[in-house]
Amino acid sequence: MLILVINSGSSSLKYQLMDDGNIIAKGIAERIGLRSSFIKHQRTGHDSVIIDYELPEHGTAIRKVLAILTGAEHGVLKSMDEIRAVGHRVLHGGEKFAGSYLVTPEVIEAIRDCIPLGPLHNPANLAGIEACQKVMPGIPQVAVFDTAFHQTMPPEAYMYAVPYEYYRNYGVRRYGFHGTSHKFVAERAAVLLNRPFDELKIITCHLGNGSSIAAVKNGKCYDTSMGMTPLAGVPMGTRSGDIDPAIIKYLMDSDPELTIENIDFILNKKSGVLGISGVSSDFRDLCAEAEKGNERAQLALNMFSYSCRKYIGAYAAALGGVDAVVFTAGIGENTPSVRSQSVRNLAFMGIEIDEKKNVEVPRGAEMDISLERSAARILVIPTNEELAIANETRRISENLK
Amino acid sequence: MLILVINSGSSSLKYQLMDDGNIIAKGIAERIGLRSSFIKHQRTGHDSVIIDYELPEHGTAIRKVLAILTGAEHGVLKSMDEIRAVGHRVLHGGEKFAGSYLVTPEVIEAIRDCIPLGPLHNPANLAGIEACQKVMPGIPQVAVFDTAFHQTMPPEAYMYAVPYEYYRNYGVRRYGFHGTSHKFVAERAAVLLNRPFDELKIITCHLGNGSSIAAVKNGKCYDTSMGMTPLAGVPMGTRSGDIDPAIIKYLMDSDPELTIENIDFILNKKSGVLGISGVSSDFRDLCAEAEKGNERAQLALNMFSYSCRKYIGAYAAALGGVDAVVFTAGIGENTPSVRSQSVRNLAFMGIEIDEKKNVEVPRGAEMDISLERSAARILVIPTNEELAIANETRRISENLK
Repeated sequence: MLILVINSGSSSLKYQLMDDGNIIAKGIAERIGLRSSFIKHQRTGHDSVIIDYELPEHGTAIRKVLAILTGAEHGVLKSMDEIRAVGHRVLHGGEKFAGSYLVTPEVIEAIRDCIPLGPLHNPANLAGIEACQKVMPGIPQVAVFDTAFHQTMPPEAYMYAVPYEYYRNYGVRRYGFHGTSHKFVAERAAVLLNRPFDELKIITCHLGNGSSIAAVKNGKCYDTSMGMTPLAGVPMGTRSGDIDPAIIKYLMDSDPELTIENIDFILNKKSGVLGISGVSSDFRDLCAEAEKGNERAQLALNMFSYSCRKYIGAYAAALGGVDAVVFTAGIGENTPSVRSQSVRNLAFMGIEIDEKKNVEVPRGAEMDISLERSAARILVIPTNEELAIANETRRISENLK
Repeated sequence: MLILVINSGSSSLKYQLMDDGNIIAKGIAERIGLRSSFIKHQRTGHDSVIIDYELPEHGTAIRKVLAILTGAEHGVLKSMDEIRAVGHRVLHGGEKFAGSYLVTPEVIEAIRDCIPLGPLHNPANLAGIEACQKVMPGIPQVAVFDTAFHQTMPPEAYMYAVPYEYYRNYGVRRYGFHGTSHKFVAERAAVLLNRPFDELKIITCHLGNGSSIAAVKNGKCYDTSMGMTPLAGVPMGTRSGDIDPAIIKYLMDSDPELTIENIDFILNKKSGVLGISGVSSDFRDLCAEAEKGNERAQLALNMFSYSCRKYIGAYAAALGGVDAVVFTAGIGENTPSVRSQSVRNLAFMGIEIDEKKNVEVPRGAEMDISLERSAARILVIPTNEELAIANETRRISENLK
């Protein structure tokens, strides 16, 4: 069953055509609405090609992607009718979506209502959905929310200690993100442990460009490190993660040129390991620099791992124990030093890494890197958000019949 | 050896006259610089008295306090020359003070340099010091800093993942507060455990109007929950504690009437358990309300204890284990439900409370409330910041001879 998965950003549109979990073709339309826009397209088993197109808006991009997918030269389909459903990644579902939904006018309205919570992403996600509706009428569209898995958190985990009316009037609370990924790897962990998902305490560490950690109890999210927005939690490539909120006014007082908009930009785009190291937001660069003796690159790496370790400890305490710690996403899958330091000296709570196995994880492989005697398993599990979105989309569109 | 301990706030001045750890007299000058100012004074063993005075500034307040202490009616001294030294609590020592210091012109200058970091407290602390210097010339003045004990934190604990130049240029980092109290109770814990302070892993929970938790490793502070300012960490009476920093701009966007100054006020004075419950910042009120079925009061209590539990787990992970968890200050000493919930389900990391002992702690007593089999001790230890300041003051003024 062919499913098209769409992840649209403000000026980009990623796509992946999947057939029962296998990728048939994938690509990305870049610089939508800008000059020099193009589509990078790859059929599985072939080299990728870059084709220049004028892409004034998301609708044109979707039309071109479908033209490529059904075209003679780089195509994989005879007709776009072969696509049975389209799954869309949507950033922010607020409190309105605790699962994936078939797109209806009501669902579109509700996604629109969440724009204040996801001002950069939700409009782009909507543009992708509406473009597909127009170009592929009659083909079911499914919305899969980055926040949905976290909607099971108890109030003591999702509420902030600010005046209650800010929750009631403006929806100020923890929502959490990367939910599709946390759910995907937590479910895989249960399979690897050969135990029921709904009887396990799992800590999932999605460490990538954006990073978040989640506590999953009996199959449900119990807490997570990102907050109302993806800014909070552990330090990230360019995002600060948790800081004393009083720093914002202090900076505005210290430098009267700084507006709240400037600070927002700095905390999102100029902070994190980039801000500390002054070198790069990419952990491969940081590791290389630290190797060469760059102290601020080393500090950035230390801060990141230390923050992860504190969250693992905090969530173990929140869960009352831990059966598995999962590392996933770019850094989590590919940076042994981060994994090692994130669980350092945690034997007292039953978490013991096998340092030898840790450095032998093959790229893209699932692997248990804990010591035999470790009470908790430490697992590396590659995430696959597109597959998870495709599975959700299939489940929901099959139910339509 | 008689020591006067002074803790001056913006419109108040607390004092305690101590003789080798025994309180001779204590009191507070209130509403300094306001109408209807007064001094509440108590000799040990006597009822307290309230005396109205005009107190236009801290100098007058100190003069009146000394007049009372040496007066015929409520006095305890023949002459103020009997006071051998004065110890002052100073909020913010920045990175300049990792210990207590005899007040010199250079020390005063350095405290003044820290005013941007402690804009409300440091000017008041300086006013108290300068008033004493003027009124009691020749008597040694000692500054004891709330931040000093935390100066041993490693960089990965004290740095924020914001652009490095904010640390270099403006001193943006974690400083931590309540240091005198954390050090005092951690040292007492070592005495109660009958083990060397510099070989222990201790988590100290100072839970009062302001609350902070510290990780103490081998006699030195390793991490603490308050940040650059006392706003960060666990939720407090009226302070938010940790929030997603993006909430600030979101609130300003949601309500264009809100300025950064308004938000700062709200996060410091209208948030915390008061903001959530809408009832009170006082835990006795909250417990009573929760008992009556007030859900938001219960939520506020749950959020507080849950946040403490996460910090205890995080710091256990940071320390690589824990020998003792200490509860102190108003809430920590007197609220069994908070203690119980803060260490709930932590047996897997060797922390097990004796629920029976927990509800039997006599007011003002030190007590081990852990189960016999618990690997870590759970201790209730009343804090005594004035005694700690007096001890520091004695140590430093004795060294002068």
